[in-house]
Amino acid sequence: MKFTTFLHDGSPRLGVVDGDSVIDLNAVQPQVPASLRGALEAGVDLPAAADAALGSNGERIALASLEFAPLIPEPGKVICLGLNYFDHAKEGGRDKPEYPWFFYRGKTSLVAHGKPGRVPKISERFDYEAELGVIIGRQVPRHVSQEAALQYVAGYTCFNDMSVRDYQKRTPQWTIGKNFDATGGFGPVMVTADELPQGAVGLNIQCRLNGEVMQNADTADMIWSVAETITLLSQCMTLEPGDVIAMGTPAGVGQARTPQLWMKHGDTVEIEIEGIGTLRNPILGEEA
Amino acid sequence: MKFTTFLHDGSPRLGVVDGDSVIDLNAVQPQVPASLRGALEAGVDLPAAADAALGSNGERIALASLEFAPLIPEPGKVICLGLNYFDHAKEGGRDKPEYPWFFYRGKTSLVAHGKPGRVPKISERFDYEAELGVIIGRQVPRHVSQEAALQYVAGYTCFNDMSVRDYQKRTPQWTIGKNFDATGGFGPVMVTADELPQGAVGLNIQCRLNGEVMQNADTADMIWSVAETITLLSQCMTLEPGDVIAMGTPAGVGQARTPQLWMKHGDTVEIEIEGIGTLRNPILGEEA
Repeated sequence: MKFTTFLHDGSPRLGVVDGDSVIDLNAVQPQVPASLRGALEAGVDLPAAADAALGSNGERIALASLEFAPLIPEPGKVICLGLNYFDHAKEGGRDKPEYPWFFYRGKTSLVAHGKPGRVPKISERFDYEAELGVIIGRQVPRHVSQEAALQYVAGYTCFNDMSVRDYQKRTPQWTIGKNFDATGGFGPVMVTADELPQGAVGLNIQCRLNGEVMQNADTADMIWSVAETITLLSQCMTLEPGDVIAMGTPAGVGQARTPQLWMKHGDTVEIEIEGIGTLRNPILGEEA
Repeated sequence: MKFTTFLHDGSPRLGVVDGDSVIDLNAVQPQVPASLRGALEAGVDLPAAADAALGSNGERIALASLEFAPLIPEPGKVICLGLNYFDHAKEGGRDKPEYPWFFYRGKTSLVAHGKPGRVPKISERFDYEAELGVIIGRQVPRHVSQEAALQYVAGYTCFNDMSVRDYQKRTPQWTIGKNFDATGGFGPVMVTADELPQGAVGLNIQCRLNGEVMQNADTADMIWSVAETITLLSQCMTLEPGDVIAMGTPAGVGQARTPQLWMKHGDTVEIEIEGIGTLRNPILGEEA
């Protein structure tokens, strides 16, 4: 099953993907909250709700006609891992880390599929990062075991952790360089966990800039698996329905190339993950 | 004017403080959203609404009888500054920074006045940090000038940026050590900006542990003022109504003492800021 979040009269709505169309889930099942986070918080059985919607004669809206919203426009938390692929740590001159480098994104940094990622007015060092996104489906018990961790995952999506490198490195805290407006590409769909390998391992993950492959890796190469990451986080905090984990990026970022390569106004960046789909964002200047 | 957020039948409500009592603002003015963030997002004139409530014969509830919620239970962003007092940077062996060390907190890290801060099961290195909290009242234009920045501040509060030091230092990213459950004391009141000096400068700020003064400073000693901080952030992102900025802590933290001092089960920690009030949290073990 695939779910997406699109705009209807300016408000985000939760949709079920049916081929190249979408069904507004709340329109055919009014008891289901109209947002993905809301539906997860309410404990809705999303596969069952989607089944019922797909079996209905509810209106189909062409995917190509939709204006998308970030998959979850306001998650309780967006937790990102730095350096979760050893080859990316190496290209940045770093050793294999012994604990994930966690940082957070805020809602104003998120950007929907199809909407422009924005090159900041105050920086030209704007880079892409292809990442697997994890959507938490149910509240995770504190100190959950790795064996139990994956049952709390609702599904997976594409994330583009676009980074303003000079601000990321301006102090040892990366947060500011990861929180410029419209830099966190998020979506367009969540594929339910049951449709992918356990922990979404073994999936090809790519970033393409203007059609050219810039990153090309396998999610099996992540240092910390999704289950390990959830276990580590649960030792510290409560993960809630609709929380998002961005699992870090493989080698090939623009910063590590010779010469360095930065995204600029007019570019198009795509993140594709096997079995999930493609997240596409045009790149525009901040004020364009 | 002072506003607070308390629990009524388990749900947060926005209250106006009237001496040692509170008036449920939404109960006497049903057009005002029942949350501080909601009221700010709706553009409610809070001083006028409070005036009307204080002039009404609406029910007064004793402050001492209230169960509080975090001042804003789910802010869009909680942005924290590290190292914003030079004496604290020095006690940590660091130079005066040239840019704020920003990091974020998530909602699950917040804890209300009167509720326990929690010593993690996996760490004993649990420290206090007295901070001035800033509540954004209106959406801040990108690239706002320092001269204009303060008009977007609704008011000020107390924040206790309780830190799990070994996790804070486990990698260069401090975020995880600042995001354990129930470690961000937040409240109990917001004092509107008009009742304090411009930018809340020149206020005594203290942390007391079990009644003993551990930090004692003046908000005039902040390296980056509130206005400068808003200007810097606005170069990167949109600050929205209900967003929170925690302005960093002065010298005297437990980590920098000889011998080092950690908060433990049974302690009581208080943050007091002149003209704002006192935020008090008992400290309990995670599972107590």
